[in-house]
Amino acid sequence: MSITLYSAWRATAPYRVRIGLRLKGVDYDYHAIDLVAGDQHKAEYRQVNPQRLTPALDLGDGSDILTQSLAILEWLDETHPEPALLPKDPMARARVRIMANVIACDIHPLNNTRVIRALTAMQVEQAEQAQWMARWMTDGFNTLEPMIARYGKGFCFGDSPTIADCCLVPQVYSARRFKVDIEPYPAIRAVADACAALPAFIAAHPDNQPDAVKA
Amino acid sequence: MSITLYSAWRATAPYRVRIGLRLKGVDYDYHAIDLVAGDQHKAEYRQVNPQRLTPALDLGDGSDILTQSLAILEWLDETHPEPALLPKDPMARARVRIMANVIACDIHPLNNTRVIRALTAMQVEQAEQAQWMARWMTDGFNTLEPMIARYGKGFCFGDSPTIADCCLVPQVYSARRFKVDIEPYPAIRAVADACAALPAFIAAHPDNQPDAVKA
Repeated sequence: MSITLYSAWRATAPYRVRIGLRLKGVDYDYHAIDLVAGDQHKAEYRQVNPQRLTPALDLGDGSDILTQSLAILEWLDETHPEPALLPKDPMARARVRIMANVIACDIHPLNNTRVIRALTAMQVEQAEQAQWMARWMTDGFNTLEPMIARYGKGFCFGDSPTIADCCLVPQVYSARRFKVDIEPYPAIRAVADACAALPAFIAAHPDNQPDAVKA
Repeated sequence: MSITLYSAWRATAPYRVRIGLRLKGVDYDYHAIDLVAGDQHKAEYRQVNPQRLTPALDLGDGSDILTQSLAILEWLDETHPEPALLPKDPMARARVRIMANVIACDIHPLNNTRVIRALTAMQVEQAEQAQWMARWMTDGFNTLEPMIARYGKGFCFGDSPTIADCCLVPQVYSARRFKVDIEPYPAIRAVADACAALPAFIAAHPDNQPDAVKA
């Protein structure tokens, strides 16, 4: 029985799950979905995830496929407890989830492929689209920076990676890709840099996926 | 020591938390934030939640204020276990969280006050704004309908309310408010109707909040 992750190399939601799987040491097969070519709209993928979004995780045991990166990360932490991706104390867990949700609810949903395409269809110009993306990222980073400065000791919360880091690192990748200025966020940058040196984060990086397009 | 919920009567994210608090039987003081008047941008509220979004939950014990409705609901379930808002089995918990995230990550963030205001500032016309809102709601409901039909037995998942119902009921309220057609979703409507009869959901309803504006 082998696990299959449906992923797109640069999309931040499957990137979160790749980090989680790698941190837990869970092996998986990689099934590339080309979001630019529209693989997500094809009948084959609609059978996997009718919502036509990535990621999807097929556990290979006949159970329904899992979707939604945060739900997958929580499931992963409950079924593979070590190393923990959430602290034990409820208040500490809340802090981690707050950070993860700032990214997964307040930044990313406004900037993903389907939304940018919707803006294009509404005749919103490229420059305004770039401002749109930068606005939500900046707003989210402004929220996260003091939280990480307060609660982080090397990572977003404490001294080991949590689901907050699984979300932050892809978001910082996205910010750099779309040239959003992260200079004003030293705590965020320090965490991203610390994570970038770890094997799990390296293995999960977009450039190291089978579907990566070399520049 | 008393808990204070910073809430806006019609906003769906604090509505989720009100349902959770009521289901758990947790008493709280209600602090109204007038999103139309811009209370969320005033210095007083920025001290509560620098992100300028609702909800925020002040536990009254000197600990940092909690934000992010899903993080609050998870914290609530961990600190007040009965009645449970998540099933025990990890796969079942994932199913509930997937439904909650479809709403909290893929519908709501695209339709909240700050985003609609951003569209207005970009000269997007009212009719197009309505289409925008309907599109994400419809897309999300299309995803949820078969999930609820499959896993629900009176509620979104199984035969008692979970965090998925805490998210669904406010989203259905929003759909009705903005005249999005929910006729094609019998499973969703059945759950919303069942919940509407329960005391916790009645107490949490926008019309029953101190800041409700009577039509």
